[in-house]
Amino acid sequence: MELWYTEKQTDHFGITAKIKQTLVEEQTDFQHLAIIDTVEFGRMLVLDGMVMTTIKDEFVYHEMVAHPVLHTHPNPKHVLVVGGGDGGVIREVLKHPEVEKAVLVEIDGKVIEYSKKYLPEIAGELNNPRVEVIVNDGYMHIHENKNTYDVIMVDSTEPVGPAVQLFEKGFYQGIYDALKEDGIFVAQTDNPWFKGDLIQKVNQDVKEIFPIVKVYQANIPTYPSGLWTFTMGSKTVDPLNIDENNIPELPTKYYTPRLHKAVFALPRFVEDLVNPK
Amino acid sequence: MELWYTEKQTDHFGITAKIKQTLVEEQTDFQHLAIIDTVEFGRMLVLDGMVMTTIKDEFVYHEMVAHPVLHTHPNPKHVLVVGGGDGGVIREVLKHPEVEKAVLVEIDGKVIEYSKKYLPEIAGELNNPRVEVIVNDGYMHIHENKNTYDVIMVDSTEPVGPAVQLFEKGFYQGIYDALKEDGIFVAQTDNPWFKGDLIQKVNQDVKEIFPIVKVYQANIPTYPSGLWTFTMGSKTVDPLNIDENNIPELPTKYYTPRLHKAVFALPRFVEDLVNPK
Repeated sequence: MELWYTEKQTDHFGITAKIKQTLVEEQTDFQHLAIIDTVEFGRMLVLDGMVMTTIKDEFVYHEMVAHPVLHTHPNPKHVLVVGGGDGGVIREVLKHPEVEKAVLVEIDGKVIEYSKKYLPEIAGELNNPRVEVIVNDGYMHIHENKNTYDVIMVDSTEPVGPAVQLFEKGFYQGIYDALKEDGIFVAQTDNPWFKGDLIQKVNQDVKEIFPIVKVYQANIPTYPSGLWTFTMGSKTVDPLNIDENNIPELPTKYYTPRLHKAVFALPRFVEDLVNPK
Repeated sequence: MELWYTEKQTDHFGITAKIKQTLVEEQTDFQHLAIIDTVEFGRMLVLDGMVMTTIKDEFVYHEMVAHPVLHTHPNPKHVLVVGGGDGGVIREVLKHPEVEKAVLVEIDGKVIEYSKKYLPEIAGELNNPRVEVIVNDGYMHIHENKNTYDVIMVDSTEPVGPAVQLFEKGFYQGIYDALKEDGIFVAQTDNPWFKGDLIQKVNQDVKEIFPIVKVYQANIPTYPSGLWTFTMGSKTVDPLNIDENNIPELPTKYYTPRLHKAVFALPRFVEDLVNPK
């Protein structure tokens, strides 16, 4: 018997992956959670029927959330990750020695629990003493901590279920207020092939709050269309003004100093979403 | 009844697309050819069970074969496209007014015939007077035309079936000889997630023949992993020495002058394939 996991990424298109076994399948207080072991991509975390991360390609997303913004901020000591209970972004954040404290605020404790158990390659740094893990609502945490963080990273699911309010303008204003005076934030903002309207709306909202707003991209094979975007909002520093020659080489598999500016060069149809004529 | 086209991109992973109807399904003298109409990506050309092009995302591949090399060569008058019977690359080549003649050498006349009939948005320029269409073996054509072309583009299928010899070192030597003294060629070289060995081998082979060899990438949702590579071999001009400010804006949906150099910045795991330590 062959078992295949099939995910409809749109109503009419999807991916399908042969699986060895299902390790977890559970309805948590917030979402449907599954961890399945696939032949091609290894173990895979699936929330509400959408692939969140896989052992084979997780490095792309986690590196590309963490490193562009941390190599843009001049001295990121205090970092907040909203969501990201699998711990992958935290693992990358800790590669930056100047980060003194990384706070993870994940709404669903089950994501943390099962990631530690079944995805230790990803979640292994969640017990690091530089990390504080808080199981709580990220929206509330943001609004309760003013002028606190140097860098905030929003590692959310898609804007369905618990993450809906993480794509609202009020959330971005909360992030602005939670950041210090030279703070920067970054959020994953889905793909331009099927969700162009989302990228456009987030971009408009963030531009009304942050003076510097830039979108960059990365290739993630198991995410819809394989082309993922990230939106960065900054109070003072422009990521394109960084001297790439001063970026240290960290142990990464996707991000390099040579990619730092290149990823901000967008295909024309994505440029048109971000800077409509 | 719902019909879905499912393509195994590896033995254990694939894509699946809901279809409206099958327009063509035929065993030609060279390969299995199908044109199906999908809901998400529109009409789709499938050769030997692999998506070659779709109405929705074809612009990426066709633009990214044609424009980087044509904006690198100082004066590309005489262009050869090997394969590419759907006509998409030819359409992009003709956007360059300095190209006087574009020759298409496609081994399978049925690809041309059915593309003209069912994919006119892509194949529509094959009757343009600046185009010469030859139904023949590209490998032979290359070896019979020395010192003839300014630019050669290899728009092949994967290295199975009729395209096997288009990935051999003898073919790249033939291309070198068919190019004029400042000639440049580009070939599609598959994806680094599932076919890293192919990219590595082509790169090694081409480096033994051409003094300047560079790899660049683009996102193509319906191709395996969504990340596609292209290998450029050049006799004298380095694509990274071009002044982007002098590149004219053409009517494109993916390529822009701002992308010209950025697409050569590769993820570290791809860098490591191309420049092994």
